[in-house]
Parts: sequence; C-alpha cells; structure tokens
Amino acid sequence: MLEAYAARYRRDLTESVVPFWLKHSLDREYGGYFTCLGRDGSVYDTRKYVWLQGRAVWMFARLYNQLERRPEFLDAARLGVDFLRRHARDAQGRVYFSLAREGQPLFFQRKPYAAVFYQMGLLEYSRATGDAGCLAEATEVFWRIVEWIANPALLDRPAYAGQVPSSSLANHLVLGLLAADLAETTGDARYRQVMRDTIAGALRHYDPARRVFLEHVALDGRDLRAWPEGRLFNPGHSIETAWILLHLLRDLPDPAARQIALDAIEGSLEHGWDAEYGGIFYFMDIAGQPTLQLEATMKLWWPHAEAIYALVLAYTLTGETRWLEWLDRVDRYVYTHFADPEHGEWFGYCDRRGDLALASKGGNYKGFFHVPRALLFSIQAIEGARQP
Amino acid sequence: MLEAYAARYRRDLTESVVPFWLKHSLDREYGGYFTCLGRDGSVYDTRKYVWLQGRAVWMFARLYNQLERRPEFLDAARLGVDFLRRHARDAQGRVYFSLAREGQPLFFQRKPYAAVFYQMGLLEYSRATGDAGCLAEATEVFWRIVEWIANPALLDRPAYAGQVPSSSLANHLVLGLLAADLAETTGDARYRQVMRDTIAGALRHYDPARRVFLEHVALDGRDLRAWPEGRLFNPGHSIETAWILLHLLRDLPDPAARQIALDAIEGSLEHGWDAEYGGIFYFMDIAGQPTLQLEATMKLWWPHAEAIYALVLAYTLTGETRWLEWLDRVDRYVYTHFADPEHGEWFGYCDRRGDLALASKGGNYKGFFHVPRALLFSIQAIEGARQP
Repeated sequence: MLEAYAARYRRDLTESVVPFWLKHSLDREYGGYFTCLGRDGSVYDTRKYVWLQGRAVWMFARLYNQLERRPEFLDAARLGVDFLRRHARDAQGRVYFSLAREGQPLFFQRKPYAAVFYQMGLLEYSRATGDAGCLAEATEVFWRIVEWIANPALLDRPAYAGQVPSSSLANHLVLGLLAADLAETTGDARYRQVMRDTIAGALRHYDPARRVFLEHVALDGRDLRAWPEGRLFNPGHSIETAWILLHLLRDLPDPAARQIALDAIEGSLEHGWDAEYGGIFYFMDIAGQPTLQLEATMKLWWPHAEAIYALVLAYTLTGETRWLEWLDRVDRYVYTHFADPEHGEWFGYCDRRGDLALASKGGNYKGFFHVPRALLFSIQAIEGARQP
Repeated sequence: MLEAYAARYRRDLTESVVPFWLKHSLDREYGGYFTCLGRDGSVYDTRKYVWLQGRAVWMFARLYNQLERRPEFLDAARLGVDFLRRHARDAQGRVYFSLAREGQPLFFQRKPYAAVFYQMGLLEYSRATGDAGCLAEATEVFWRIVEWIANPALLDRPAYAGQVPSSSLANHLVLGLLAADLAETTGDARYRQVMRDTIAGALRHYDPARRVFLEHVALDGRDLRAWPEGRLFNPGHSIETAWILLHLLRDLPDPAARQIALDAIEGSLEHGWDAEYGGIFYFMDIAGQPTLQLEATMKLWWPHAEAIYALVLAYTLTGETRWLEWLDRVDRYVYTHFADPEHGEWFGYCDRRGDLALASKGGNYKGFFHVPRALLFSIQAIEGARQP
C-alpha cells in the first residue's frame, strides 16, 4: 500500500534533497555548513548557526549509518563535527547559538537547544566512526543539558518571581530523542530512566478533550490556560511529540501511552489543519484567542514533514486506513507547495494561502534536518528495515 | 488641503482609538495597562509588557499636555507611572521586559528599549504634573540608556569575537526622541549634543542610491552588506527615522540633512510599497535576497501609521503635492485594512494580501502608542499648532 510513497520519498531524498545540501552547504574552506541558501542554493549569509550545524552532522552521519555507507556522507559529517568541536563551546562548556563563518562566536541564546543538536551530531558521528572522544563528549554534554533544563540560570536565564513554574514540551522531546540514542549506543540504564521520565513528562502535556499536546503546562497545579503560553498549540510539535513517544515506547511498552500518541496524531491534524486553504497552521490558541506569534497562520515545511512520517508510522503500526487518507492529504500539500523539482530541496515558508513567503531553501532555523529525517524515517518504516 | 484629513484623524483619535484603550486597557485593580486585547477589547493575556506600559504613559500624558487637559488622561497616565515605578526596575536599576499582572518580574530582555519607554513615560508625566522625582528619575534613566547602548554587556549581552561592530538605527531613533524632549524640558545643552550625535549617527545609515535608511551599518568601515543584517531594510523604521530627523532639525537646522530626511520618506515608500497587493512591507533585503524574518511580507499597522504622519509633515513643510498622492494611498490602505469602525482602534497584523492574520487590537508589541501618536502629530502638524 505504501510502496509507492517509499519509492517517491527515496527519490526525493536521494535525487533532490541530499544532492542539494551536499552541493551547496559544505564550507570546504572554513568547515561547517552554510545553511542560508537561496532557491538555487546560493549562499546569502555565511554565518554558522549551531542548531543547524549539529543537525546536519546528525543527518549526514545517520544517512551513513542507516541509508548507505557512502564516504561522502561521513566526510560531510566530519566537516561539521570538526568545526563544532573547534568553535562551538564557550569557556564554561556552554554552546553558542551562532558563529562567524570562520568560527568566532557571535551570539549565545539562553536556551539548551544549541547544545542539544551539538550533542545529537557528536553521538551519531561517534556511532559512524567509533570515535571514543566524540562519544565521551556527547555523554558529557547530555548530562549538562539535563542540568541546564533543570536550572536555566546556568544559561544566564534567572528565574523571576512572576513566572509560573512550567514544563515545556520541547524539553521532553529533546531529552527523549537524545536519551533513546544514548541508551541504544551505551546500554546504560540511566538513559532508560530519562526515557521513562520523558514519556511521563510529555503525557502531562496531553489535552484529552482535543487530543493534542500543548506546549506548556504548569508544574504547581495552576491552570496555565489563563496565559497565552498555556493555551499555545503548535500542531507540528504535537505531531513530532507523538512519533517520538512511539519510538520511546518500542523499548518501554505502555498500551495506554501508545493510544494517546496515536490519538494525538489525529487530533493534532484535525485541529491544526486549515480547512479553508489547506496545510498545517504554525501556532494556534486552543481557546480561539489571538496568538502573540504574528506568523501563526503561516504554513511551514517542518510540521508537514513531521506529519508525513507520523502518518506513515501510524499506518505501519496499526494498518488502519484512516491514516492513509491524512497521508494523502498532507503529501499532496507538500508536493504542490514545498517541493521544488527545479532546484531540489523543499521551500520552507508559505503564507496561509500557500503562496511562498520566502523563496529560500534554508536559513537560521531551516537546514539539512526535518525533510531528510522525515523521508529517511518514512522509507525505513515502510520498508520495514527498522519498523518499531 | 489637509483639513479633511485632520478632521478625520481627530475623529478616529477621540472617538475610536482613545475610548478603546481607556475602556479596555486600564487595570484598576493592580495598576498599569492590559495591552493584549482582542478585537472587542477583551483581555487575552493579563501580563504587563513594559515597552507598552511606558509608551501608554507617554501617550496619555502627551494627550493631557497637548490635546486636552482631561483629568482622565492624567489619571490613566498615573496608573501606569505608579505601576512602573513600583515594579519595573531590578536591583541594578535595569528595566524588565515583562511583569506579571500584579507586578512581579517575568522576563528581562537584553536590550535597552524597555528602559527607553519607561523613561519616555516618566518624562512626559513629569511635564504634565511638575513631579520633580519623576523628572529626576527620567534624567537618571536617560544616562543609563546612553551607557547601556554603548556597553550592552551591562545588559548581560557580552561582545563576542565574531561580531562586526555596528550601529543600529533603532538606537539613534530612541536617543534622538528622548534627548529632544529632555532638551525642551530642561534646556540642558548636553541633550542638544546627543541630538547632534543622533542626526550624524542616523545619517550614516542612509543609502543614497535607494534613498532609504538601513537598519545596520558597520562602525569599522567594513561593508556590512555581506551579511543579512547589513542589507536589512525596515520601511516603517526608515520612515520613522525621517520624521524624527525632521523634528530634531527644527532646533538644529541643516538643509542637507533635511533634504535627506524628505528623500528618505519618498525612497522608503517607493521601495517598501507592495506594488502587487498594496501596503508597506515589514522587512526587505535591499539586494533582493531572502530575509531571515519569516514575517517579512506581512503588513503591520505601525509602518502605515508612521507613513501617515511623515507624509503629513512632509507636505506641511514643503507644500509639494507629490506627498498628497502618497498620503492618499497610505490613508486609503489604512482605512480599508486596519481601522475597525465596529469596535474601535486599528487591527495590527495583515498578511501580504491584506487579509487579517491576527484579529487582536493589542499584544506584547502593539499598545496605545503608534496609532494615537501618528494621529495626534498629524492633527497638530495640519492645524499648525506645533508645526516644525
């Protein structure tokens, strides 16, 4: 049933997406990757955004580890690893958000995510090469991330009296992703405990009435829905949470949690899909209030990439045809709005009606990650190579 | 020629905009203002965003000082001043970005602008009341802002090796605005020096080929246009710069600078106006590259408000009819897209085609400021009460 999708996704991955980034993204002069690429791959900003450096390392190494042992994948991963390890950490071991082309620091974001993608890249690279130094550093950074999430003051973000102590969905997602790979790599039981905590933490974000994961919930029992962040629903994130949970549940089975994850894929699409113009909204307020995000009604590439893989996974797990109807709808939207057969790779940013808002293929938040990951994972799920 | 505009702007200001904010924005229970207001004025977020608290204080006090000595304007200004002075500064005297409804700190932004609007509010309030404590604090905060702009490390934003030392247009704008009011209030010559520095600083941002002010220029002679921020053009900001320069030049005449300011109004509109759908773009790359801002093609209320006043001012200064053609175009766009005769005040956020992207009247960056300021200043310029 899904074979035609797998063939098409493989073609998109290997003939359009990967060649685009291999051709335009590698900075052979200074190392690392250009990610600010115009429609045709021309570089419009030479700076190195660390989220995207780490993500591209992970992606190239993952392709090497699981798609095909092509030396150029490993070379491309090494180009990023060497650059990151040389330049991305400050004297305290924290990870910068952006660097100059040559590697000098530019900006430190008071968030743990630069470190998250740094860690992801190092770990996957160590799996490709057996590099023990890389694995040791990935392990060290992981536990720093756990600490930074627990105590953001270490990232220069002090707690203030007016804040409601809350849990952020993104933090569960990234800890779960990292811990699952570390558990698989090292067999260390501590990572399985983080995975368990992640599952429990993410489930606290589930809104059973709407069958979606919300971005923020209070930790002290208060109803955070009195504030905009407590009502914030990011459909792409909610869908990503669902498939990450399904991955974690492979090793830690829990039928109730599995059902919630499946329900959240459907609920997120039912609430997040734009009935008027098609496509998945970027942000929504679950009470129908205005959002503070002015780009809320835009259609971004990555929620659609997440949805494709989540739907493929849901179908391969359940065999229920309702997932195929959604997959057909999302896939059709992607291939009529985001894909660019002329120059390769997907566009990233459409307005509500689906017209291109930006003609770029990459930027400071779009790199070599969501599209190839979703395509690779979908191919793998369909072909059964790594079915959950 | 402009009398009909003045009459309409006065009606909009006094019958729609001011009543909307007086009715919905004042928090009589805890002080300060709600700014996150839905279409009908309902509050969707009770937090206090300090940029907008200071701006509303300034606006209410300015209306009291220059439009009409209505006690409710002064009362409304006091509600904000008392709240701000009680809650908005940290132990080091820096100014928070946001506060809980009751006043506890929520977030500190590593930028000087919360302090800028805090200062603006206090100064204008001191002009309304003669409150010497307020004036003394406004003076103190002004010199702190000068220091913070010169040394952002004081705002926890360290300089990093990869940064190109650059000048930010916004900093000139705010220093010029604050210094002009302080010079007028105190007669102190030091403020006239800041005004002179502002004029010189802003003129360094002028791109004579395009007749626009760019957001960032390098301080060390490098061509910053190799980076996106060096190519960043914010038409609304460029237009606002032009009228602020024209204000500063009242007291420090310079015919060449005056000509540049007038040219920049026209150049910014010629480059920033969307020939296809109408309205002024939010961000543009002057080399036609993609921007990093995903909301670049949206149409926001405030560039249009700035344009209305700049065009009124340009016409009253020059009598040239070319300004009237632009005024007619911008005014028509505003009153068919942003104004809301049903509930009052303007909407803030349209997509490129002019459809509403958010139905809110206020948020964390839209409050009681740009619309009433542009309307008041336009009325004053037209009626000659305070013509430059």
